[in-house]
Amino acid sequence: MTPGTRGTVSLSRPVLRYPANPVLAPDDVNRTWRDPGLQVVTVHNAGAAMIGEVTALLFRSHLRCGISILGAARSADGVTGWQVDRQPALLPAAPNDRYAADVDIAALVGMESGGVEDARLNPVEGTLAVTYSAYDARVKNRVHVALATTDDLANFVRHGPMVERDMRNVVIFPERLGGRYVGLFRPNDQLPGDVGGTFTEIRVGHTDDVRSGRWQLDDEPIMRTGAGPSAFSDKIGPGAPPVRTRHGWLNLFHGARTTMDGNPYVLGVALHDLDNVRRVRMSAVPILFPSTADCRVPEDAYVHVPNVVFSCGMLRRDDGTLVIYYGGNDTVLNIGFSHEDVLAELCTTYGQNPLTGELLYPLRSPSATSHRHH
Amino acid sequence: MTPGTRGTVSLSRPVLRYPANPVLAPDDVNRTWRDPGLQVVTVHNAGAAMIGEVTALLFRSHLRCGISILGAARSADGVTGWQVDRQPALLPAAPNDRYAADVDIAALVGMESGGVEDARLNPVEGTLAVTYSAYDARVKNRVHVALATTDDLANFVRHGPMVERDMRNVVIFPERLGGRYVGLFRPNDQLPGDVGGTFTEIRVGHTDDVRSGRWQLDDEPIMRTGAGPSAFSDKIGPGAPPVRTRHGWLNLFHGARTTMDGNPYVLGVALHDLDNVRRVRMSAVPILFPSTADCRVPEDAYVHVPNVVFSCGMLRRDDGTLVIYYGGNDTVLNIGFSHEDVLAELCTTYGQNPLTGELLYPLRSPSATSHRHH
Amino acid sequence: MTPGTRGTVSLSRPVLRYPANPVLAPDDVNRTWRDPGLQVVTVHNAGAAMIGEVTALLFRSHLRCGISILGAARSADGVTGWQVDRQPALLPAAPNDRYAADVDIAALVGMESGGVEDARLNPVEGTLAVTYSAYDARVKNRVHVALATTDDLANFVRHGPMVERDMRNVVIFPERLGGRYVGLFRPNDQLPGDVGGTFTEIRVGHTDDVRSGRWQLDDEPIMRTGAGPSAFSDKIGPGAPPVRTRHGWLNLFHGARTTMDGNPYVLGVALHDLDNVRRVRMSAVPILFPSTADCRVPEDAYVHVPNVVFSCGMLRRDDGTLVIYYGGNDTVLNIGFSHEDVLAELCTTYGQNPLTGELLYPLRSPSATSHRHH
Repeated sequence: MTPGTRGTVSLSRPVLRYPANPVLAPDDVNRTWRDPGLQVVTVHNAGAAMIGEVTALLFRSHLRCGISILGAARSADGVTGWQVDRQPALLPAAPNDRYAADVDIAALVGMESGGVEDARLNPVEGTLAVTYSAYDARVKNRVHVALATTDDLANFVRHGPMVERDMRNVVIFPERLGGRYVGLFRPNDQLPGDVGGTFTEIRVGHTDDVRSGRWQLDDEPIMRTGAGPSAFSDKIGPGAPPVRTRHGWLNLFHGARTTMDGNPYVLGVALHDLDNVRRVRMSAVPILFPSTADCRVPEDAYVHVPNVVFSCGMLRRDDGTLVIYYGGNDTVLNIGFSHEDVLAELCTTYGQNPLTGELLYPLRSPSATSHRHH
Repeated sequence: MTPGTRGTVSLSRPVLRYPANPVLAPDDVNRTWRDPGLQVVTVHNAGAAMIGEVTALLFRSHLRCGISILGAARSADGVTGWQVDRQPALLPAAPNDRYAADVDIAALVGMESGGVEDARLNPVEGTLAVTYSAYDARVKNRVHVALATTDDLANFVRHGPMVERDMRNVVIFPERLGGRYVGLFRPNDQLPGDVGGTFTEIRVGHTDDVRSGRWQLDDEPIMRTGAGPSAFSDKIGPGAPPVRTRHGWLNLFHGARTTMDGNPYVLGVALHDLDNVRRVRMSAVPILFPSTADCRVPEDAYVHVPNVVFSCGMLRRDDGTLVIYYGGNDTVLNIGFSHEDVLAELCTTYGQNPLTGELLYPLRSPSATSHRHH
Repeated sequence: MTPGTRGTVSLSRPVLRYPANPVLAPDDVNRTWRDPGLQVVTVHNAGAAMIGEVTALLFRSHLRCGISILGAARSADGVTGWQVDRQPALLPAAPNDRYAADVDIAALVGMESGGVEDARLNPVEGTLAVTYSAYDARVKNRVHVALATTDDLANFVRHGPMVERDMRNVVIFPERLGGRYVGLFRPNDQLPGDVGGTFTEIRVGHTDDVRSGRWQLDDEPIMRTGAGPSAFSDKIGPGAPPVRTRHGWLNLFHGARTTMDGNPYVLGVALHDLDNVRRVRMSAVPILFPSTADCRVPEDAYVHVPNVVFSCGMLRRDDGTLVIYYGGNDTVLNIGFSHEDVLAELCTTYGQNPLTGELLYPLRSPSATSHRHH
């Protein structure tokens, strides 16, 4: 077993942080990418997948100019010894990149001109479907989710936007369900004068052809932020591509709560029925809250966004262990360990209504009842 | 005297922090409340009162799901050796709780469904009037201040909302004034589509019967945030129930200032005439600013809101010493010591107009004058 | 050479922090200004100039009441041994201050009643033209930039607002250009019900008489925040008065980016042609990002605004070394060292269009090209 990863997860402590976090920091990238134009100030929010026996991550880094690009790192055991690829993996689209047929190259080049972010590595049909956010440098806050395919995180074929509308996070279930591909989407609303979005719901989408760019989204969400105080009260969206367990599909999502100073991001978990992904049990209890331990950096390092944990990738091991790759404060990359049995039990025992936020378990034990006073 | 509390307060340093802060942290609660559904991530903003010879606190804790509940802790000397009660003290109202006659139980259950917060313990008529914020889980940001009475912080009788309108903080003067009960209120405005509030003023209210739910509020505030740059420029509200001193009623309030990154909360102090609470002298100088020392937590701990000190309770000792219980970063509970003479002098010598914010003392010494140049 | 200042700057690390930062902290001021009404919680954003052989700073401090005032500090070598003047240098205008003829004294007293902030020391005509922000205590967020002249940072003559409109940051080129004085301005927009401003552009202004209060501003900006993700995407404005180098005028400016939690402020650099200041090459790469090392304070110290570096003064030495005086988190004052050759090369090699934000250099090396896939 990986050194330093022993411990017990429980309903009260569902994730154990890897003691040697972070596993990737900006200096690790800057030692490899020496070009001053490619020096980075962050490395975070990595998609994760197995490529043969190797664990591969596709991480996001902010260049100093503020644009994000994607890079690859690889490890034999998925925890230690990460090697960063010598060149960035995916930069904003350029005319000489490799494109699928029918892609409007000029449109995509514009669409990605503000950077590429938060890639998910979705194993689909024996290849990796990379779903990533593409920012347009010409319109404030305009963002699409685009698709690329790759077998090695070195050579990519670009397929363009997954849907035409503004979108920020998309994950794909790793097998056909009812004969179709199914994904979880966080739409962005069109606001007058801006395209920032509302960030408040997750919808199911489906398609017959992952590469087509013709996903059909449900009219109604399956999860929402809800109305009252909650750890997910102001923002919610997909995190890691769903993982098959004997309990159901485990969906590691992100949520945020607006406070008088900042918007702490936490990791949440939901359980979708294996044969009906729209039937979802959502834990009211987040599994990881941000902390200082999630952003260990040198004293002179920049920290991009305080009070954030955010995951784009979770890998299951044969014994049900879950390895969660998560960004800390949008600045460094960390690992946490959990187990499918604990996460499933949180969803079934400490649930909330995924649309209203109403708690589905009692806060008081039966002994706490009392009587009306006259 | 309590170990570690020696020191001198002054106009330049009006509050001394207890060196062993925090006195309560989430782990202290979690060791007592073992149910995974009752694990907390914060303990803060405690009301304080003497119950016989024991100092009792009614603290607020965020459950992991994001809802707040109230718990009790007790200490023989008011500073050390805090014991947390084995069960939470006050959870969101449930039908089997104890209610006063005439309370609309179903309405109150809905009104409190999003959690109970920031209780003040107001000694009134030989019992404790608990004034606490009740959030509605069904309407974003809807909050009332409700009343419960208790003699022991274990058995409560609920009396429902103090006023029908949205409200966030209420404290009650500890004796009848002019034959009536008097309180300080921070109203929330009704906003179209939201009920968040403006947070910018404190009004006096009065009633003949504390338990009636029929408080009458003045049409005009007695304190306001003012217009210009100030430590209280963007939010102001009651903190601890007023404390009788020979100088007047000491009102420990909270204020916040909006900056380019966050809204630092400070503690302020005002002095109300003993025989006319609407006559108020307000110190322009806050008595405590937030600091790292106010939120000492383990590296892996969650911190809910940076840059906040907030008090719901201050107790006076016979020698005029004031023991201030205050939350740090909405995460832990701390103690600070002050003295009534120093706080009163801040109000009388370094005042600001409580409605306009205009300073009432000169920034320059008389020697600094100069002459017009031609 | 000053101890602790050896090191090499480069395109990848264009600024070296002085290891003994901060050079001024609130305690340094409070030891000198003993009046409780003059105790400060910050010292930051200092203008800098040589007065004879002495380096002089005009720093900003927040009094505890929240109003800012200006103080002077002096050092023989510009790095160590700072002495704070015994009295504040510039307080909000009072009737007995020294005024130029034609100044509407009563209007200026009102205009500055909320405090004076962020002074630049612009060497003009053998004196120092102090351009500082003046807040009005009577109207929320109303701010003008006013002018005072001084030879010693002890005696000032006030000249009133530089322009009538709301304004936040102004710097003046240190010599006449084309026979006129030229400055860089960051206008504030007039918003309905507020005068906060948009913070998104820098314009050139010119005048025949620095003291007249009749500057004429260009209709179009020369620098803007741009539309897409960038380190300067949400705010931009002048920092230090421009410094003449053999490469052009070096303009050290500030920029901020809005994130989900805060607005990190960075230092940026632009190069204006010596004979045409409207011809500007702007580095897309900031030269300094905020870090913990920029706000070293005691555990019980207040920190006003997290994640900020901000400069009002940069001094050139004969060898092209640049000494940058910059505030950390609006709380303490630090020093960084750079060199004009490195900053000029950032502007010419890693530029962005100063109006659109478009990058002017390729992110990928020529070897990274690939081919269209069918």
